[in-house]
Amino acid sequence: MQEESRTPSDPQGEPRPRAVRRDPFAWLDEARLSRECAGLVRTLRHRPADSELLDLAGNDYLGLTRHPEVTGAAAGAARLWGAGSTGSRLVTGSTALHAELEAELARFCGFEAALVVSSGYAANLAALTALTGRGGLVVSDAGNHASLIDGCRLSRAETVVVPHAVPDAVAKALDGHAGDALAVTDTVFSVDGDAAPLAALHEVCGEHGAALLVDDAHGLGVVGEGGRGAVHAAGIAGTEGVVATVTLSKALGSQGGAILGPARVIGHLVDTARTVIFDTGLAPAATGAALAALRLLRREPERAVRVRSAAARLHGELSAAGLRPAHPDAAVVSVRAPSPGAAVRWAADCRAAGLQVGCFRPPSVPDGISRLRLTARADLSDAQLAAAVATIVRTAPEGAAG
Amino acid sequence: MQEESRTPSDPQGEPRPRAVRRDPFAWLDEARLSRECAGLVRTLRHRPADSELLDLAGNDYLGLTRHPEVTGAAAGAARLWGAGSTGSRLVTGSTALHAELEAELARFCGFEAALVVSSGYAANLAALTALTGRGGLVVSDAGNHASLIDGCRLSRAETVVVPHAVPDAVAKALDGHAGDALAVTDTVFSVDGDAAPLAALHEVCGEHGAALLVDDAHGLGVVGEGGRGAVHAAGIAGTEGVVATVTLSKALGSQGGAILGPARVIGHLVDTARTVIFDTGLAPAATGAALAALRLLRREPERAVRVRSAAARLHGELSAAGLRPAHPDAAVVSVRAPSPGAAVRWAADCRAAGLQVGCFRPPSVPDGISRLRLTARADLSDAQLAAAVATIVRTAPEGAAG
Ligand SMILES: Cc1ncc(COP(=O)(O)O)c(C=O)c1O
Ligand SMILES: Cc1ncc(COP(=O)(O)O)c(C=O)c1O
Repeated sequence: MQEESRTPSDPQGEPRPRAVRRDPFAWLDEARLSRECAGLVRTLRHRPADSELLDLAGNDYLGLTRHPEVTGAAAGAARLWGAGSTGSRLVTGSTALHAELEAELARFCGFEAALVVSSGYAANLAALTALTGRGGLVVSDAGNHASLIDGCRLSRAETVVVPHAVPDAVAKALDGHAGDALAVTDTVFSVDGDAAPLAALHEVCGEHGAALLVDDAHGLGVVGEGGRGAVHAAGIAGTEGVVATVTLSKALGSQGGAILGPARVIGHLVDTARTVIFDTGLAPAATGAALAALRLLRREPERAVRVRSAAARLHGELSAAGLRPAHPDAAVVSVRAPSPGAAVRWAADCRAAGLQVGCFRPPSVPDGISRLRLTARADLSDAQLAAAVATIVRTAPEGAAG
Repeated sequence: MQEESRTPSDPQGEPRPRAVRRDPFAWLDEARLSRECAGLVRTLRHRPADSELLDLAGNDYLGLTRHPEVTGAAAGAARLWGAGSTGSRLVTGSTALHAELEAELARFCGFEAALVVSSGYAANLAALTALTGRGGLVVSDAGNHASLIDGCRLSRAETVVVPHAVPDAVAKALDGHAGDALAVTDTVFSVDGDAAPLAALHEVCGEHGAALLVDDAHGLGVVGEGGRGAVHAAGIAGTEGVVATVTLSKALGSQGGAILGPARVIGHLVDTARTVIFDTGLAPAATGAALAALRLLRREPERAVRVRSAAARLHGELSAAGLRPAHPDAAVVSVRAPSPGAAVRWAADCRAAGLQVGCFRPPSVPDGISRLRLTARADLSDAQLAAAVATIVRTAPEGAAG
């Protein structure tokens, strides 16, 4: 994910001479052409409300986004509180509903306090920019999500990118640094669904007096006892130096994000984080929906178990059929494709057969390798899983088998 | 707004020696203390659903966020489409509802195409990172919103900050540059509510072959014929080199943001913009609410006239009473306070008298001067405006009068 998007002056290498009244966006056509040649053009596909496709692409891991309690809560919150929050959290954008969600989310995940923002992306920008800065050091896993990478860039701290999931590499990067330091990692990596070595990272950070920021976007609702997340499962939630971010848009079926941590960290974010101060508060409907989903999960903790066993089953059956999916530590099961073009065709063949899968190509893959990205859900039946596997295997391109 | 938040290593100047098992967040206490001394500590105030305060602080300029058509659309969309969009716009997060909003928003504002994202903040990050890059030049107004500033930082382009609202300064900054260039400005500045010289900026950019990116967050719904925004009013909407961003969270009473521009620019954003590719699509409830608000505005264009006359009235009456509010070019009326502490006390006195006003202190003010920030709304009665003015005048601190 460290790749750059194609930019006006980057691809050509040399600046172009200035011409008066020239077309300032002429470079876009060239950039488009080279994306076309590389198989990297994307098209938005606007789905209908009642799609007939079997969805193994979305991140609604617990099958809650259309649950009547969740959609009812969204509808009720919009009617009671209004369609928007009307201002930043510090002006008019904080409601009692936000406070309720923050208190319950913090308790559920094992943290002292929480702060809800408009997206998981904004949560990561908030945490990184407010908790690091010029003169500080950030040690960032090479597989981290784009929003963490952008947070590192915005933080103005020195950022050292370390090999994927290697605690020793983090230790080495921290060793040389005398000032404030923070290590940052996804808990479950978004592309391959593998887990970070959280306990070891926590140990390393403790030894070095460094803070640890973990993005539990794909852990919350899926990993750990009752879906309390990967941070809770690792036994490090609520400890002094640990801050977590989550999104409300995946397992909780809504939209938004949150930062979880010690109360003094959350207070600091309220005072200083740019995506808190300068962004409109989360809409009441999204806030209410996430709260309803959280309460459903507390009442039905077996949903977290079901999504994990669905992922394990996908992995097992794809492997048995000769493909080589990555081992899933949560809900994501990823299968490599020989090329971006092959991935696109594979996904299109699945779609033609009634199955929607994710198709990840550069710049959405840290290693440049295109993949089908499958997501398990708690509400998938065994028959649906078997049908999905049959389709994926039948449409697999040459070179996809191990 | 160019100020930095207080960061671990910044304030002390010198890195601290590393101590094993030290508290990685010890620096937060010191940072909090210095904010306390500077009058810069903030507290989230969670409002109830039926606040009795008269609200002159929120950005619900047209009074639509609680309009039954708007909240009904939010509720209906949640029930029909689900509480969340379930994935990024490129995977499962695009619905027919998003497409409808994009088409109607583009047409209303006078652009060829539009792309909806999760916030106005994300829209600005998307536009700046995808349309500029290393080797390019961005010329940024000194009063620009934090989200534009963050976009400049993320873009990796060379950024030149020019004096506020001076087209000649933009021309001078562009003069020396041979490569691709983009000028960026708020259309209506968020703190003082003054308008940017859009026509002159467009002329300067045209002469230099530079693109022009304008953030119409505070113009949409308020400025121009029927509230079509400041870009439309300046006659530059839909021209070749112009891209606009808007938020759905102010005049449209919802949440989210959008980028408006030529179709090839929007196509480029879909392929390359990080806050498009790596962020979950806007929730259906927010999408539906914004669409309903837009349709209401088209049907009742006089709402845009009413909000502007309410702002003019606030300005006139405050001036007549001896205060010195900034001249409003849209809905925002800003009144300077002698210090951060005086601003906080002034806002608190207003609140005690039943009036909620915005209180802007560093880092939310580009020039470091604290202010009361008042926002007019289309649905404020003359009696409410008069009562608000009386309260503000009565509670004004020494030194606030001209
Ligand atoms: C690991 C990770 N972090 C953060 C995000 C961003 O969350 P959101 O979509 O709520 O902005 C995502 C995906 O969207 C993600 O996969
Ligand atoms: C000028 C300007 N641009 C962008 C934004 C961000 O929009 P949003 O709150 O939808 O993220 C704001 C305020 O919130 C703003 O005032």
